[in-house]
Amino acid sequence: MNTLGKIFRISVFGESHGEGVGVIIDGCPPGIMVDEEMLLRDIDRRKSGKKGTTPRKEYDIPVIMSGVFKGYTTGAPIMIMTENTNKRSPDYNKFSDIPRPGHTDMVADQKYGGFSDTRGSGHFSGRLTWSMVAAGAIARKIIEPIVVGAGILSVGGNKNIEEEVERAVAAKDSVGGLIECSASGMPVGLGEPLYYSLEAAVSSYIYSIPAIKGLEFGSGFRAANMRGSEHNDVIENEFGKTSTNNAGGVNGGISNGNDLVLRVAVKPPSSISRPQKTYNRKTGKIDLLEIEGRHDACIALRIPVIIEAALSLALADLVLINKAIYGGKE
Amino acid sequence: MNTLGKIFRISVFGESHGEGVGVIIDGCPPGIMVDEEMLLRDIDRRKSGKKGTTPRKEYDIPVIMSGVFKGYTTGAPIMIMTENTNKRSPDYNKFSDIPRPGHTDMVADQKYGGFSDTRGSGHFSGRLTWSMVAAGAIARKIIEPIVVGAGILSVGGNKNIEEEVERAVAAKDSVGGLIECSASGMPVGLGEPLYYSLEAAVSSYIYSIPAIKGLEFGSGFRAANMRGSEHNDVIENEFGKTSTNNAGGVNGGISNGNDLVLRVAVKPPSSISRPQKTYNRKTGKIDLLEIEGRHDACIALRIPVIIEAALSLALADLVLINKAIYGGKE
Amino acid sequence: MNTLGKIFRISVFGESHGEGVGVIIDGCPPGIMVDEEMLLRDIDRRKSGKKGTTPRKEYDIPVIMSGVFKGYTTGAPIMIMTENTNKRSPDYNKFSDIPRPGHTDMVADQKYGGFSDTRGSGHFSGRLTWSMVAAGAIARKIIEPIVVGAGILSVGGNKNIEEEVERAVAAKDSVGGLIECSASGMPVGLGEPLYYSLEAAVSSYIYSIPAIKGLEFGSGFRAANMRGSEHNDVIENEFGKTSTNNAGGVNGGISNGNDLVLRVAVKPPSSISRPQKTYNRKTGKIDLLEIEGRHDACIALRIPVIIEAALSLALADLVLINKAIYGGKE
Amino acid sequence: MNTLGKIFRISVFGESHGEGVGVIIDGCPPGIMVDEEMLLRDIDRRKSGKKGTTPRKEYDIPVIMSGVFKGYTTGAPIMIMTENTNKRSPDYNKFSDIPRPGHTDMVADQKYGGFSDTRGSGHFSGRLTWSMVAAGAIARKIIEPIVVGAGILSVGGNKNIEEEVERAVAAKDSVGGLIECSASGMPVGLGEPLYYSLEAAVSSYIYSIPAIKGLEFGSGFRAANMRGSEHNDVIENEFGKTSTNNAGGVNGGISNGNDLVLRVAVKPPSSISRPQKTYNRKTGKIDLLEIEGRHDACIALRIPVIIEAALSLALADLVLINKAIYGGKE
Repeated sequence: MNTLGKIFRISVFGESHGEGVGVIIDGCPPGIMVDEEMLLRDIDRRKSGKKGTTPRKEYDIPVIMSGVFKGYTTGAPIMIMTENTNKRSPDYNKFSDIPRPGHTDMVADQKYGGFSDTRGSGHFSGRLTWSMVAAGAIARKIIEPIVVGAGILSVGGNKNIEEEVERAVAAKDSVGGLIECSASGMPVGLGEPLYYSLEAAVSSYIYSIPAIKGLEFGSGFRAANMRGSEHNDVIENEFGKTSTNNAGGVNGGISNGNDLVLRVAVKPPSSISRPQKTYNRKTGKIDLLEIEGRHDACIALRIPVIIEAALSLALADLVLINKAIYGGKE
Repeated sequence: MNTLGKIFRISVFGESHGEGVGVIIDGCPPGIMVDEEMLLRDIDRRKSGKKGTTPRKEYDIPVIMSGVFKGYTTGAPIMIMTENTNKRSPDYNKFSDIPRPGHTDMVADQKYGGFSDTRGSGHFSGRLTWSMVAAGAIARKIIEPIVVGAGILSVGGNKNIEEEVERAVAAKDSVGGLIECSASGMPVGLGEPLYYSLEAAVSSYIYSIPAIKGLEFGSGFRAANMRGSEHNDVIENEFGKTSTNNAGGVNGGISNGNDLVLRVAVKPPSSISRPQKTYNRKTGKIDLLEIEGRHDACIALRIPVIIEAALSLALADLVLINKAIYGGKE
Repeated sequence: MNTLGKIFRISVFGESHGEGVGVIIDGCPPGIMVDEEMLLRDIDRRKSGKKGTTPRKEYDIPVIMSGVFKGYTTGAPIMIMTENTNKRSPDYNKFSDIPRPGHTDMVADQKYGGFSDTRGSGHFSGRLTWSMVAAGAIARKIIEPIVVGAGILSVGGNKNIEEEVERAVAAKDSVGGLIECSASGMPVGLGEPLYYSLEAAVSSYIYSIPAIKGLEFGSGFRAANMRGSEHNDVIENEFGKTSTNNAGGVNGGISNGNDLVLRVAVKPPSSISRPQKTYNRKTGKIDLLEIEGRHDACIALRIPVIIEAALSLALADLVLINKAIYGGKE
Repeated sequence: MNTLGKIFRISVFGESHGEGVGVIIDGCPPGIMVDEEMLLRDIDRRKSGKKGTTPRKEYDIPVIMSGVFKGYTTGAPIMIMTENTNKRSPDYNKFSDIPRPGHTDMVADQKYGGFSDTRGSGHFSGRLTWSMVAAGAIARKIIEPIVVGAGILSVGGNKNIEEEVERAVAAKDSVGGLIECSASGMPVGLGEPLYYSLEAAVSSYIYSIPAIKGLEFGSGFRAANMRGSEHNDVIENEFGKTSTNNAGGVNGGISNGNDLVLRVAVKPPSSISRPQKTYNRKTGKIDLLEIEGRHDACIALRIPVIIEAALSLALADLVLINKAIYGGKE
């Protein structure tokens, strides 16, 4: 079930401490210029290393294995991967017995009957988002002239982002964050009514990213508190431009030409340095667990580029669907 | 693109003022007791007629056209539909020229090159959610013993729901609402990591419902403001029960056995009785538009049963996927 | 699992003696002229009544329930159905005990645990091909200027078709037939290499029709006996026209601009008037079974238009895929 | 469009002279023992080197990149690939101008607007069937106790296979072949009626293999010449065993418990040593083309294991679908 999209489709594979992680991109038009350099621009933005992100080095160099020839996509499936060079793995087995709160230790063990690759959370790891970022870099080209951009609005409810992260680090704790993403240059007409509405398509990509707890479009949760007279965006010209953008660029699941605007809530990372209570499955008692190593104190800092990728991928699929169905007779 | 699900799949059809609306349900196990009576229990809850909902009668009687024999599902595709008895239609054509704010008049006209059925918003109409509710009634049987329930938390930010609706009606206005839905009796292990995570699956159903502006799980948008030490749910016993439920019943995209909890924000209906400004595509000027007829002042009141249906349908698909992949050798 | 196609998608429902049979067509471009008259041209060709086909009347009148407005497709899902007016049903239950050779009585009973609708073979009935023919009539419009046509090559190995059918009827027997179908006006480039090759796409539609035992393209089974020097088609001009057409219009899964040519083998109907031996599941002994009523002696006579529909549907999907992926930047 | 299957799904990538070829297998149950050794048993059978197959060495060693941990599948996507060690490539560019008869040179050039990877036929190469064989080795485990086996029936119409191949080689020519494949140990009930019938499912895999011109089940094309009294298989016992097997193990698209039997026709390879006439796109004249290098004279010899893989993969998908839908309540 690791495929997203109907025409422009991505299929992910890999584990945190296995051989590597990667993605097959299917349904990509031929003739698009693609090289490792271009992929790296997005991949680098996802990297850790900033304050509040883990200083552990990840070897993120992308290798294009298929589907690109002489610098251009060929129309054949594109496979891009990155090797895991650091496969040494501390003992994650103990977490089957003493599951870390907020982690997948217990559910993975039960779902897969003990066969799950537990090293570094295996296939559940945030490292898998590398694949979405790599594919997203190609999707950006397909949706031109649409431009997608995202940024952090706040961390722990505080707009002084660095300050808040430092406080969390000092407290041996972690902290959540709020991200806004928008797409400008939107055409009218992307999205299919109801079951593949723009929001439905986008949400299935966004909620494929670990740690996302909320997603809203335009006015979002504020809409629940509003009156219609206040919420309705006044249409101002023949292109459908509206005075306000409570719709977030979408009417009835279809883009209306205004900027597409969405926000996502990212939870604080589950791995924190301070001791936590959890159930010990061997002893049947509550234990105090200390998680060693260095972890992201604020994973939200690394997520804007992943949200951009997710949105670009969803839009690329909708753009190609539009060309198929509404492209007109040639 | 009007199909949702991978095994238990629903495909929708119909228009607001066409012949009728309906749904094909594919991948439904044989031997499930289904009759019109049972479907009506949910369908009736979706009906208008309460304060704040339109008094217009809808003829909602379901007819099971296939896939059920002697009161039980046969394993063949189930088609259920309801006829539109009221097909007289006021002049919706004018809205192509003077598009209603917040409606699909303009985007539909442009997307479909003028071929769209504009009567009562056609295929975009909220009437299409009838299909989801009918299918959802069957999905409930498949996910037993999971029980899904939803209710209104507030309307226009006010917990005194009737009062707030009356105020909006008095003001010739409409109002949004906040809904909470939960599933109890959840097993551990529903959902596939990443691209068909429990949240990704559920969100694609929820965002297929018109008027939804936001969706959050567990702590939701509050998570962005929290610390990890506060957000992490302490595991308390061998079944994975947690002391708090910030996770909303999901870890890493997999159900953890606790109640699944989500909230959705519903926007205020776009049709309001008071005059609104909008662009006149014929004259090129801003006009004052009055929308006649009687409309729902608070569509959120009718949506809890649709959210229940959406969640039940998503869970039914995940339950069958689990049986396929993790059911073990027979 | 009753959906075919990736963009232009059809989903079937119905039973032989239930309320009716029908189809949802999704992904159909707007602006295509469609009416019942046009559908009937194909539907009539599928009808029984000719020598060798059952004189039983079928009420085949199509009703367009959605997706068409003022005579044109709207871009919304199209639902077309026909009611079963003759729902009286002889006792098919006995066939669960004394299964008819060549029929689905025994497998359906076992697969669906006794819940199957057995009347007139239920969802397995050839009547379900009505849906493919109705949808195929619309697909023909999408693939213009491609023209698809099929005809009977032989019946029971005899080119004197009427004669052979009469002989079978006289012998209280049934007889098989061979059909050829071709598409002219083919563009170069339809089909995706490997997993959605032109042949793979087409075959999944053709083998969805009951009673098909073989399918071959171009040289077909003769290719197994040929040398390369004999089989290779010499390319003669810049459009790729070849002197011979052993390829059947396909190279490497992609159309080459020559006529697409395929042949299908249709088995003799399993219902014959003469007594047949079969296993009695109640007594545990071999019984002699007489099947009453009047049946098609040669179902192959009714199948050419269904093959045309199947091919048109597959091509329509490939045409839209091509527009999506290879349509170029607009 | 390079994915096959609904639950047990394979996605292929790679080119003949690119970095490598491989496959992602999704929806595979956890706990299946898999190692390179086991994969090699099937992969080795696909290798060239026998009389009539090219002596060129292919480096076929599989590397399991994900989804297997400590020798067992984990439930996560399995990626298996093999590197292309011989990436030197003769000049295939000339074939864009002077297209080889029977090859994809011309259609690929036109379909992909000149961006196609032409080296060794790129993504169209028979080398891509490596992926199907690797995945098929795992599928075999899922369908146990079903056992799938295939063999050559004839080459060039001759049962003396080696003799006929030698004659073709001596004549600087190539030759086609006929293959039979069967599955024993079949349960009753695999396959979905109509659009995912056993034959429809299997055919979409079989016709994904290059060089296949025909596919028939059971009596196949002989059925077109038969009478019903002759074709109907007499049911003999409570397990549905039949005296003959004209049905090829399938009734109404559902397995009936008898052996599943199919035959495929493989065309003679298009690359032959003798000079051939073809159109020169530069000069606009017919040229005489000589294809250098050593090629398979009879590709059919290498295909039985690929047919086995194709059938195993289709059955694996159907087995898992059955567990999902008909597995009963737990």
